[in-house]
Amino acid sequence: MPYILIQVTREGVSLEQKQQLIQGATDLVVQVLNKDPQTTFVVIDEVDTDNWGVAGQSVTQLRLAQQLNTPPQK
Amino acid sequence: MPYILIQVTREGVSLEQKQQLIQGATDLVVQVLNKDPQTTFVVIDEVDTDNWGVAGQSVTQLRLAQQLNTPPQK
Amino acid sequence: MPYILIQVTREGVSLEQKQQLIQGATDLVVQVLNKDPQTTFVVIDEVDTDNWGVAGQSVTQLRLAQQLNTPPQK
Amino acid sequence: MPYILIQVTREGVSLEQKQQLIQGATDLVVQVLNKDPQTTFVVIDEVDTDNWGVAGQSVTQLRLAQQLNTPPQK
Amino acid sequence: MPYILIQVTREGVSLEQKQQLIQGATDLVVQVLNKDPQTTFVVIDEVDTDNWGVAGQSVTQLRLAQQLNTPPQK
Amino acid sequence: MPYILIQVTREGVSLEQKQQLIQGATDLVVQVLNKDPQTTFVVIDEVDTDNWGVAGQSVTQLRLAQQLNTPPQK
Repeated sequence: MPYILIQVTREGVSLEQKQQLIQGATDLVVQVLNKDPQTTFVVIDEVDTDNWGVAGQSVTQLRLAQQLNTPPQK
Repeated sequence: MPYILIQVTREGVSLEQKQQLIQGATDLVVQVLNKDPQTTFVVIDEVDTDNWGVAGQSVTQLRLAQQLNTPPQK
Repeated sequence: MPYILIQVTREGVSLEQKQQLIQGATDLVVQVLNKDPQTTFVVIDEVDTDNWGVAGQSVTQLRLAQQLNTPPQK
Repeated sequence: MPYILIQVTREGVSLEQKQQLIQGATDLVVQVLNKDPQTTFVVIDEVDTDNWGVAGQSVTQLRLAQQLNTPPQK
Repeated sequence: MPYILIQVTREGVSLEQKQQLIQGATDLVVQVLNKDPQTTFVVIDEVDTDNWGVAGQSVTQLRLAQQLNTPPQK
Repeated sequence: MPYILIQVTREGVSLEQKQQLIQGATDLVVQVLNKDPQTTFVVIDEVDTDNWGVAGQSVTQLRLAQQLNTPPQK
């Protein structure tokens, strides 16, 4: 019966990673709570970085700031 | 005052079906709980089949397996 | 596969009403979208009236104002 | 630690408005609840007007009706 | 940045199980998506069995039916 | 039409603070997006500290650790 929502920023989560999230989250409630995987929902919600804020800034802005502060790779 | 979220996989829900879901969900809380339709929200959230997991698999995979197990139509 | 969340204020929803909401919401997605009731979740979330705001006021305040504006019953 | 979800119809919310929503919502919980902005999430969810219902109608229909009832601008 | 909601029926989830769910869900997004655990939220929402419906029935009813169908233990 | 969910840990949010959150969140979408307060919902969801995890630990544990690391007040 569990419903698991995994909300992350839309930053290139691959099909394989989505499958790992679905399998991993299902396994978690099966192992910890002995739930039936057949009636365990996992929903992955990808949110644009413009639409997700942390510390009062959008993730788009945070990522930009991170890039500016990263010394160029040799 | 009710807020109703209807989350389904993104598998071609038509405009007409969306209207039926909105009308039906609103009628439900009006009839059962005597709520005011003017302040009843219904939100339909369509989720990609890659992003919805059941029994540890994505719905994309489940649909594929269903197709493979379906005998060809004569 | 549908997940339906029905969020209402905690104002005495009876067991029977909860059952009607569960049955009605399930029937809705079965009839409109031909979904499998066995994998249709309906979750009813009751929210304290102090914790639900409309028009900038809590529902507790709104209900109070409604009572004050209602002429006494003869 | 707060998680704030702001769900609105997808009707052209600009980048600047998104930033104002993120900043404003973060400031609100910092000022009222003394929360740490570094661990305050704000998520803006934009919903298609076909997918949002009020009073049993989709917002798309409501907007259409509003336009039809608005006298032409001179 | 991930926000993970784990919604389950209120059926005696122990403190230890809650800690395992929190740790497990956090580890999942750290390992699969390389996310920072410091800004990974996990919220466990326990829902009364009267308030959770599957196949048109509340979980309370389903559990009752399961008990009636279970042969007495010798 | 906005629906705003403010999810915080259940750590003694007062009635007055709840009213400030409701008023503040409503004002925010009115000022930034010119929304109608009459159809703006604000829902405050208080979550037990056992049920909220950050960095793989429950908030209950984090608060305990914070107390142990705080030098006694003179």
